[in-house]
Amino acid sequence: MESADAIPGYLYGSHDLERSPVTEEDLAQLKQTVLFGDDDERHLRMAGEVLDDQVEAVLDVWYGFVAAHPHLVRYFAGPDGGPVDEYLTRVRTRFGQWIRDLCERDWDRAWLDYQEEIALRHTPAKKNRTDAVEAPDRIPLRYLVAFVYPITATVREFLARKGHSEAEVDAMHQAWFKAVTLSVALWSRPYAGDEW
Amino acid sequence: MESADAIPGYLYGSHDLERSPVTEEDLAQLKQTVLFGDDDERHLRMAGEVLDDQVEAVLDVWYGFVAAHPHLVRYFAGPDGGPVDEYLTRVRTRFGQWIRDLCERDWDRAWLDYQEEIALRHTPAKKNRTDAVEAPDRIPLRYLVAFVYPITATVREFLARKGHSEAEVDAMHQAWFKAVTLSVALWSRPYAGDEW
Repeated sequence: MESADAIPGYLYGSHDLERSPVTEEDLAQLKQTVLFGDDDERHLRMAGEVLDDQVEAVLDVWYGFVAAHPHLVRYFAGPDGGPVDEYLTRVRTRFGQWIRDLCERDWDRAWLDYQEEIALRHTPAKKNRTDAVEAPDRIPLRYLVAFVYPITATVREFLARKGHSEAEVDAMHQAWFKAVTLSVALWSRPYAGDEW
Repeated sequence: MESADAIPGYLYGSHDLERSPVTEEDLAQLKQTVLFGDDDERHLRMAGEVLDDQVEAVLDVWYGFVAAHPHLVRYFAGPDGGPVDEYLTRVRTRFGQWIRDLCERDWDRAWLDYQEEIALRHTPAKKNRTDAVEAPDRIPLRYLVAFVYPITATVREFLARKGHSEAEVDAMHQAWFKAVTLSVALWSRPYAGDEW
């Protein structure tokens, strides 16, 4: 795993982070709603081990997908309309660390607080600040929700590359799907205010 | 298929509906984001045929899931805290029709307008009015997002019950997953305003 120091703008566990307003009870109820149980926790850890040395390859797929769609890559564009390479690169490093954190970390207060930070960085409250870039000031909520599909579907082939049984790959993939859906539910919070 | 007249509060295609602010371009870009293509359209139609006489059984699973979780069933509760059976029943009929509409209808202006109506009926703007009930005035956005998982995962077994090949079942299931994700993206609109 890369050291956190090497990842620009990665503030996991920092005392500078605001506390998330999401409570432990909210999280427990969200886990129930996506049917996330102990078996999923185990299989998500297993997925983390399987993905660990494939994170760059997964990111290649995701970044290829974004780059191929002008309606997505525009959120990484500067004032001249072209994508800002340094911005893309910095976000990419954090995106890779997100894969690892989602699979490996306990979903505790520090994890919840960092999900809120990630959420805010998609909205006018914090987008662009971490990377000192002049790009559009928000990622529309509809794309956060829509990304549940590609972020889930594209990972299966990587989960299948380390010789696990079909049943184990399926179990890892379902745990991943649940975890991604729950993450997006948490990231939707600042968009909805009292209606979250 | 039940006639639309038999479904309380079902206003698909009605001139009384407000127009959705979602444009055809927004929809096209959302379809690209969930990778929904012509093959998916075909497999979603096939899923509609497979599910048509199983809709009540699917709803039994979904309603059983909601009923088993106090943090979900509370959104169907009246002032005395207990679930309002008539409300649950009326919503259930529309929920069943949603399955059919999602699979069978063209995703045109009438479909987009009705997605907006469904969206609003989850928020303080319109929740409870259609069914003249005094229940909580919103479904929190986090549960709309989280429901992508159970609504997707529980349908696979039903898709597999009509003798299709494993590959066809998978293709129907992926099309369903994409269509559900896109639906939730559309339903998130009124929650996010300018940040949608």
